[in-house]
Amino acid sequence: MAPAYKLSYFNFRGLAETARFLLNYGGIEFEDVRVTQEEWPQLKEKMPFGTLPVLEHDGKQAGQSIAIARYLAKQVGLAGKDDWENLEIDAIVDTINDLRLKLLAIHFEKDEEKKKTLLETAAKETIPYYITRLETIVQQNNGHLALGRLTWADFYFTTVCGAFDFFFGGDCLANSPSLKSLVQKVNELPAIKKWIEIRPKTEF
Amino acid sequence: MAPAYKLSYFNFRGLAETARFLLNYGGIEFEDVRVTQEEWPQLKEKMPFGTLPVLEHDGKQAGQSIAIARYLAKQVGLAGKDDWENLEIDAIVDTINDLRLKLLAIHFEKDEEKKKTLLETAAKETIPYYITRLETIVQQNNGHLALGRLTWADFYFTTVCGAFDFFFGGDCLANSPSLKSLVQKVNELPAIKKWIEIRPKTEF
Repeated sequence: MAPAYKLSYFNFRGLAETARFLLNYGGIEFEDVRVTQEEWPQLKEKMPFGTLPVLEHDGKQAGQSIAIARYLAKQVGLAGKDDWENLEIDAIVDTINDLRLKLLAIHFEKDEEKKKTLLETAAKETIPYYITRLETIVQQNNGHLALGRLTWADFYFTTVCGAFDFFFGGDCLANSPSLKSLVQKVNELPAIKKWIEIRPKTEF
Repeated sequence: MAPAYKLSYFNFRGLAETARFLLNYGGIEFEDVRVTQEEWPQLKEKMPFGTLPVLEHDGKQAGQSIAIARYLAKQVGLAGKDDWENLEIDAIVDTINDLRLKLLAIHFEKDEEKKKTLLETAAKETIPYYITRLETIVQQNNGHLALGRLTWADFYFTTVCGAFDFFFGGDCLANSPSLKSLVQKVNELPAIKKWIEIRPKTEF
């Protein structure tokens, strides 16, 4: 029997890795589709709003990486236990995404002079502003980003913070031992550790 | 007795209006705090990650406009009835937010020459790409953006699409009768109509 879930993305960790972590964590079998550049133009037409990742289940499909992660987190027991708890998780996830989008904008800046200025601002202001606050949250919340326990916010941070370094070209967590330790803790969960060993090796 | 909810934002509709619509729709009394530019520097320090809107309830506070809207939607019966339904709503909301962020980037572009190019691309590609697809969804889904019925995705679109025109400097829905009709339908819900009459008049 085919797995109940099919997750389509490119052959990167990128925006699909949070979902892959969650599926592995929950022991949910899934079809891990890696779309090639050759296949993409044709497939793009069939995807809602022409983007990946897309999750398929029960004949239905849905896009948007964070929405998919939130859904899967509920299936594997890494969501909140009431509406306010879920708000707390969602708020921290969207904040981490804000930082991701700011760094992504630098990565895509084509004007070299402007890129240099943006990188300086990121190093002096943006990254310290966000990372210092996230570090404090983890220190005060039992080593986690939300609710003082393991949630999908920890999975989200762990799977996107590598991209921060990639976009920024440096170690964003250099002065953040608690965030580093959180990332290590997630990566060493037995199901995640096993997944990291067997997953396709990609640059980002 | 003070209202159970306090919503702080600047004196704009902006990123708080979805939450204000939802609170009004649900008949939930709330303190509608409008922070002035004079008050902001001091208050900023006390807000998670120094941004607004922030929702306060029961001694707790949470930021991020979309996360707040999702939470309030659950309180007022405009969320999905299961996890997959909520995924469908979340995916369309995040897609609308993608469009919002693309148009916002144009608005903030300082280089006039580059801004002109970006506006052309928005007019010829970005806006038609998103709006055509959203229009089709509404046509095929009983006049709604998700689940074929009124959800907070409709409230989100209605409260942010005015900003699209503001950022873009034109009528983004000029060729989209179904989206226009959806916006009108939401604005004419009795509780919303009443809110629009009494809310502070602001530019955006």
